[in-house]
Amino acid sequence: MNTISTIPNLRAQINEWRRQKKTIALVPTMGNLHAGHLSLVEQAVADRVVVSIFVNPLQFGVGEDYQTYPRTFEADCEKLEKVSTHLLFTPSVTELYPAGMSSYVTVPKLSNILCGASRPDHFKGVATVVNILLNIVQPDKALFGEKDYQQLMIIKRMVADLFMPIEIIGVPIVREADGLAMSSRNQYLNAEQRAIAPCLWKTIDKMRLESGERNYTSLEKNAMQALAELGFKPDYVAVRQAQTLELPTAADKDLVILAAAWLGKARLIDNKIVSF
Amino acid sequence: MNTISTIPNLRAQINEWRRQKKTIALVPTMGNLHAGHLSLVEQAVADRVVVSIFVNPLQFGVGEDYQTYPRTFEADCEKLEKVSTHLLFTPSVTELYPAGMSSYVTVPKLSNILCGASRPDHFKGVATVVNILLNIVQPDKALFGEKDYQQLMIIKRMVADLFMPIEIIGVPIVREADGLAMSSRNQYLNAEQRAIAPCLWKTIDKMRLESGERNYTSLEKNAMQALAELGFKPDYVAVRQAQTLELPTAADKDLVILAAAWLGKARLIDNKIVSF
Repeated sequence: MNTISTIPNLRAQINEWRRQKKTIALVPTMGNLHAGHLSLVEQAVADRVVVSIFVNPLQFGVGEDYQTYPRTFEADCEKLEKVSTHLLFTPSVTELYPAGMSSYVTVPKLSNILCGASRPDHFKGVATVVNILLNIVQPDKALFGEKDYQQLMIIKRMVADLFMPIEIIGVPIVREADGLAMSSRNQYLNAEQRAIAPCLWKTIDKMRLESGERNYTSLEKNAMQALAELGFKPDYVAVRQAQTLELPTAADKDLVILAAAWLGKARLIDNKIVSF
Repeated sequence: MNTISTIPNLRAQINEWRRQKKTIALVPTMGNLHAGHLSLVEQAVADRVVVSIFVNPLQFGVGEDYQTYPRTFEADCEKLEKVSTHLLFTPSVTELYPAGMSSYVTVPKLSNILCGASRPDHFKGVATVVNILLNIVQPDKALFGEKDYQQLMIIKRMVADLFMPIEIIGVPIVREADGLAMSSRNQYLNAEQRAIAPCLWKTIDKMRLESGERNYTSLEKNAMQALAELGFKPDYVAVRQAQTLELPTAADKDLVILAAAWLGKARLIDNKIVSF
């Protein structure tokens, strides 16, 4: 695995691969890699797989965990060596955002709701950095985890709307044995919180939309209450149309249940895709 | 000259040219072509020159002239045949903005000042459509007129910030014999207004920053007053740093004088680049 941290060097490598007619996949990450990230790399069907590690300041709000976000470069490299990573791109902040940088990509309709309601500008930061990484690497495809479901829908929307010639692939959540969705932020949990954490998934998994209940507001309210009783500070539980994230009509059959809840210092998110 | 109006057909042609290692230049326009547009085509040094005609609803504000903007497709085609245009791209609104489109590109710092102050969201519409056209055509270079100077700076900033692998080229203003900058909107002028119109250029040309006057505020105020006395409704006259459009410091040697003024139904803009 080759590691490159500057854009000119990366472009030189990409151009060489292009000349050789290699297909290229990109897996953008913020590092601190776990089995969820590695499954993205493993499912990247391409001649060359590029992984980027960049803790993106633009997607952290004031008072959020940008400074303390876990940075584990050496362990990440070891893990990537074991899967089929050809190139690791590790740009600095000034490499991606040189002085004077002042352009942004926004998908307002999908960004101001759910997680975006409590994290203003978060998805503007996500859409912008992903747009930049896609323009630099110019991959044939890019893979993102379904755990960050709203993020995935925003990126798919951006790529479609701006006609970027890239396929965006969502990869299913990887869970711990007890059901907790893997996340770098799980390590913010103490032992007691870690024992409670899988209940986020269990609570939304129990909502069983498949069984025919269509009073989504009531299901959401019950789930929020259950989470609060378990010790979470729930941010939202929401049943939405799976692509647009709009409130579902009675006719909508492709839904997603999304949830976000604080547990101690960790803001956990999870979701369940439901089709019937 | 081949005319294509759908994205799949355009991409097929572009891909064929790419396989043949042809370089490609894009000249995005809103049609109603005049000598200014044709000079963009003439200065496009590339194996293949693509001109797009698209009256972009996203860059017109409420109450602006989107509906009445001059559409002169047949005359445009005749003019383009006479210069070295290989392909004319004429997408419909629903081709570029299909239902559900909700992504935007913004360069707020450069977009909320000068023309952007009186045309909210105008430059968001410009940046978004240019981003889309660049992603569809994927040219090696794209050419824009310096008449729309603020637009040119915003597009250069966007392409640099988002690392789009495309060269943006600004082409000098083409003027009528009496100095009026060519513009599709000049035809909104009646005979009397048309006689006054060149004074917009004459007024900013007379400011003579080169002569050593550094009280820019006073120069701006005098020019605004002169324009008002001539019968314009001046929007702004502004001396700015040439790239950032910020207020110039005493040390700045690359400046631009920008002006916008209403004359009857026409909002005219002009500028003068000054280096000393």
